[in-house]
Amino acid sequence: MGDAHIPKLQLLLAFDREFPASFHEEIKRRFPDVEVRSLLLQHGTPIPSEIARDSTIVVTLGNLPNPEDAKDIKFIHFFSAGLDKVIHNPIFLDSSVPITTSTGIHGPPIAEWTLLNWLAASRQYQYTLENQKKHVWGRGEAYAQGHDQVGKKVGILGYGSIGRQIARVAVALGMTVHAYTASPRPTPSSRHDPHYIVPGTGDADGTLPISWNHGTDKASLHAFLSLGLDHIVVSLPLTPQTTHLLGAEEFAVLAASKPPNHPNPYLTNISRGKVIDQDALIASLKSGELSGAALDVTDPEPLPENHPLWDAPNVQISPHVSALGKEYFLRSFDVVRENLERVKRGEALVNEYKRGKGY
Amino acid sequence: MGDAHIPKLQLLLAFDREFPASFHEEIKRRFPDVEVRSLLLQHGTPIPSEIARDSTIVVTLGNLPNPEDAKDIKFIHFFSAGLDKVIHNPIFLDSSVPITTSTGIHGPPIAEWTLLNWLAASRQYQYTLENQKKHVWGRGEAYAQGHDQVGKKVGILGYGSIGRQIARVAVALGMTVHAYTASPRPTPSSRHDPHYIVPGTGDADGTLPISWNHGTDKASLHAFLSLGLDHIVVSLPLTPQTTHLLGAEEFAVLAASKPPNHPNPYLTNISRGKVIDQDALIASLKSGELSGAALDVTDPEPLPENHPLWDAPNVQISPHVSALGKEYFLRSFDVVRENLERVKRGEALVNEYKRGKGY
Repeated sequence: MGDAHIPKLQLLLAFDREFPASFHEEIKRRFPDVEVRSLLLQHGTPIPSEIARDSTIVVTLGNLPNPEDAKDIKFIHFFSAGLDKVIHNPIFLDSSVPITTSTGIHGPPIAEWTLLNWLAASRQYQYTLENQKKHVWGRGEAYAQGHDQVGKKVGILGYGSIGRQIARVAVALGMTVHAYTASPRPTPSSRHDPHYIVPGTGDADGTLPISWNHGTDKASLHAFLSLGLDHIVVSLPLTPQTTHLLGAEEFAVLAASKPPNHPNPYLTNISRGKVIDQDALIASLKSGELSGAALDVTDPEPLPENHPLWDAPNVQISPHVSALGKEYFLRSFDVVRENLERVKRGEALVNEYKRGKGY
Repeated sequence: MGDAHIPKLQLLLAFDREFPASFHEEIKRRFPDVEVRSLLLQHGTPIPSEIARDSTIVVTLGNLPNPEDAKDIKFIHFFSAGLDKVIHNPIFLDSSVPITTSTGIHGPPIAEWTLLNWLAASRQYQYTLENQKKHVWGRGEAYAQGHDQVGKKVGILGYGSIGRQIARVAVALGMTVHAYTASPRPTPSSRHDPHYIVPGTGDADGTLPISWNHGTDKASLHAFLSLGLDHIVVSLPLTPQTTHLLGAEEFAVLAASKPPNHPNPYLTNISRGKVIDQDALIASLKSGELSGAALDVTDPEPLPENHPLWDAPNVQISPHVSALGKEYFLRSFDVVRENLERVKRGEALVNEYKRGKGY
């Protein structure tokens, strides 16, 4: 009788950084039924056998057990969304331990980053800041030249967790959303978001876009870019097919279909720098074909000090940080919490990596 | 037979500024059934009798017909939301010509201004800008100290058009909304927005707040400020009752109920500077009781160059411009369009000023 006889689940946090005490307290509060241990290990170092064998859940970024020590592990959870740096590890190749990722937790911060950049560009924020520094009350005429997002069209290339949260905020602002995916999404079920969703965010059922577009050929992409978009957001993975997907031709197509009396199209890239032909981007910003660009990613990274992109007109560059924030790791543990419940109920895990699929 | 025999309605645009040709073309496009004339007049100058008598709709900011010339005028539309500068004009006192305002069109730009300031404060935007100017790739650690809005609580003092659009965007970001009004709003109909609503924005039915709060006494206000708010937004009119509504006591109450591990409360004022006790605000920013403030309005305006508010910690000041943008006047004409349709259908006008109510 009594729960005391049921051994607690053992959650091992194996990471190369110390978290503050408040973090550990919060984890304990959120996992009252689990024994939480943490282990500081250099990135890439395997988890020692005796510790691995004693663990039922492992949470990590790059510390893995040997396959022979993983028999009792229910799942290994990664703090990252991608697994490209670890998929050749024996635990992937020589075991069937379930692996889960943090896909889905990046939507809110990256959507906020996107919105911040759009609004800073459209609403004279630099002018405001500079005036405040000088104690100058700015001129209303300068702000009367600003514009807002109501009625604007945003095209989202890659309608995953991030694109969906951008869509949610865009619709709240009064914009319309047009989605583009590689494969067709003709049915309601094909439009569902299969990944973890931060509660209260995203577009779980894929009902926000007023048009769904798809294709992997240039004609399909150009048809999408001809919809009269005010914004184009790049949120798709870098693959050989998406490398330099957007270049001089695409910027010309975008600009040609711009609605009258609207600013020229604005580009947002929160994916990878190489999806854009960066020289073509600089040329389009200089010519005014694009009215501006918000780039959290560049090619290469870090962007060299003497690179011309830094000073291209109306570009805003941040150092690949749009997903970061205090919430990141606790939110990743929300995925662990969800999967722990699913293990108890005998259900399929969310965000489970499919071995053999290659990403 | 034929529409040619019905005289076109005569819309007179009487204003102290010239609009560009593209604006006049757009107005003609939107009002194909109306003859549009425009008249450049100094602010406050009455509309000449012969022109007023020939007009069926007047659109203005401060040029009015004499009552005796206004018999055929269906309504006079103001570009402003408030009428406090004109309500002593004879057209208000000695005529019953319907007067309409632009209430409702300020929601989208002011909500965008609010969001921009929140996100610039929470997401290291100044650091990003300064690094870009220096061609420096910033440090991820700086951004890991940022935070996002998911799960944060915003309290909105005054749940009108502006508060509602802020609520709409806040909910999209994953926040919860708490409304505060002077009078109780216990029924669904009492929560409706009675004013013009920019299509695709706002909270027409008042369904977004998870709590409605009300009162005109200090105890009610303090109960509201004790809800554990991360943000407090001031969007209520300045009256004797709201002058210095928020001061040292209120900031202390806000800070005392802040959720653990959240930043201290953040204040946003898009109403009038005098609603805040500004000296108390500066003290609370200096002490950290408030984590920051976004102010589009100050006391006085313009804020003098040597005023200490300019350099208070974590304050962002803009020169009373949050409603401005290229869309302003065309959007005001959307209200005219709506009322023109209502006149044709014999319906009550939207945004109609009630004579005798005093604002």
